[in-house]
Amino acid sequence: MSGWLAIAGLGPGGQALVTPQVAAALEAASDVVGYFPYVDRVPVRAGQARHASDNREELARARHALALAASGRGVVVVSSGDPGVFAMASAVCEALEHGPAAWGDVEVQVLPGITAMLAASARAGAPLGHDFCAINLSDNLKPWTLIERRLRLAVEADFAIALYNPRSRSRPEGFARTLAVLREVCTDDRLILFARAVSTPDEHLEVVPLGAAHAEMADMRTVVIIGSSLTRLLQRPAGALLYTPRATPGVAP
Amino acid sequence: MSGWLAIAGLGPGGQALVTPQVAAALEAASDVVGYFPYVDRVPVRAGQARHASDNREELARARHALALAASGRGVVVVSSGDPGVFAMASAVCEALEHGPAAWGDVEVQVLPGITAMLAASARAGAPLGHDFCAINLSDNLKPWTLIERRLRLAVEADFAIALYNPRSRSRPEGFARTLAVLREVCTDDRLILFARAVSTPDEHLEVVPLGAAHAEMADMRTVVIIGSSLTRLLQRPAGALLYTPRATPGVAP
Repeated sequence: MSGWLAIAGLGPGGQALVTPQVAAALEAASDVVGYFPYVDRVPVRAGQARHASDNREELARARHALALAASGRGVVVVSSGDPGVFAMASAVCEALEHGPAAWGDVEVQVLPGITAMLAASARAGAPLGHDFCAINLSDNLKPWTLIERRLRLAVEADFAIALYNPRSRSRPEGFARTLAVLREVCTDDRLILFARAVSTPDEHLEVVPLGAAHAEMADMRTVVIIGSSLTRLLQRPAGALLYTPRATPGVAP
Repeated sequence: MSGWLAIAGLGPGGQALVTPQVAAALEAASDVVGYFPYVDRVPVRAGQARHASDNREELARARHALALAASGRGVVVVSSGDPGVFAMASAVCEALEHGPAAWGDVEVQVLPGITAMLAASARAGAPLGHDFCAINLSDNLKPWTLIERRLRLAVEADFAIALYNPRSRSRPEGFARTLAVLREVCTDDRLILFARAVSTPDEHLEVVPLGAAHAEMADMRTVVIIGSSLTRLLQRPAGALLYTPRATPGVAP
């Protein structure tokens, strides 16, 4: 008899950003599976098993969760943000594709969450209010040449660009390279948002022009948004707003 | 004395996808402002004023909301999905930038929501599990030439591509043109997700290869996701999953 598996997005951190759908799945689960800081965000419940694992263990974690569900358990795999954006939903699909036939009957659902770039954008204003893209800067699973190619094409398309996983201890160089690429193709006044740990007590936001940006402004809890050529910073007494207008020049809004 | 303005995302439709943060703001508001089908989604409360307006009235609606807040009211502007993605947050910033100095003291907050592409992605599997972009196909506020240029660059970058506002009665041609551009630069087996009214009783999802796609598959309640070259459809007894692997070929996950 097969159980079920839900891959749930916990949002960026604050409880007020967890959807009722995800809260209900966590209530119903017999098992919660995930990277340990995300499992730590789930309230402890009597009788509910918790399986916390380390980073970079995504496929093993997915297989473990599927095996539990196939044995009849109700399993929630927790991701930060949205599980479909550089998180566990793809890893579970990969594990399913290459897993035993018995997993074919497990009911799998993805429960969306507030992803980091949208939480960051909301806190800053509306920098993603026009066309944009999202690039994972981790080169664990793709070559750096592809990342750099995408960055150049994204700037050519004049997208605002959300950068996930800009910098970690194991990958200290990538974000410095990213800034170097941007300096080749953008002017120094291009606006950049560094948004760290949005909706948590550690939240910190900073907007700087490219000319003043340096790699140490990002860490593994930061999402970075590079504005498009039209993104602007509106100064006002109640607080500045970073936003990208809906219209391109010459088109009346 | 100034009031406050929150620009809140109601998510794609289902109540279980409205964040507690947004629900609390709607509880606290004296006034709810928005496009009428979105205002209709807010439960009626005694003593709370409702201001519903038509589509394409975004700037006028933003000004109205700011004037109410500046007069001391607590105002929530409601958007479907996330207010920062092709919705009201940028319109409010534009209205502020060009509005009277008295609006400078109004406290403005953007409250994120589950945007259509992430709700659609979750229902289908994980098509946005690798790098992706979001393009608004409406050419009301930008020229078609720019949209087409972005489409071509997005395919060149091998992003998965989420297309918002693919087709409406006033713009019947754009999405057909989009498919024609895609047919020039992608092979016929490129997978496309049409996701209509996700999380509502009218929900309908369909995955077809580009060769079988036609413009009438989309309407104004549809978000379209064009897979990257790596996006695949995993058939399984418990239901198919559309997903983009995390790794590029040759890189071990």
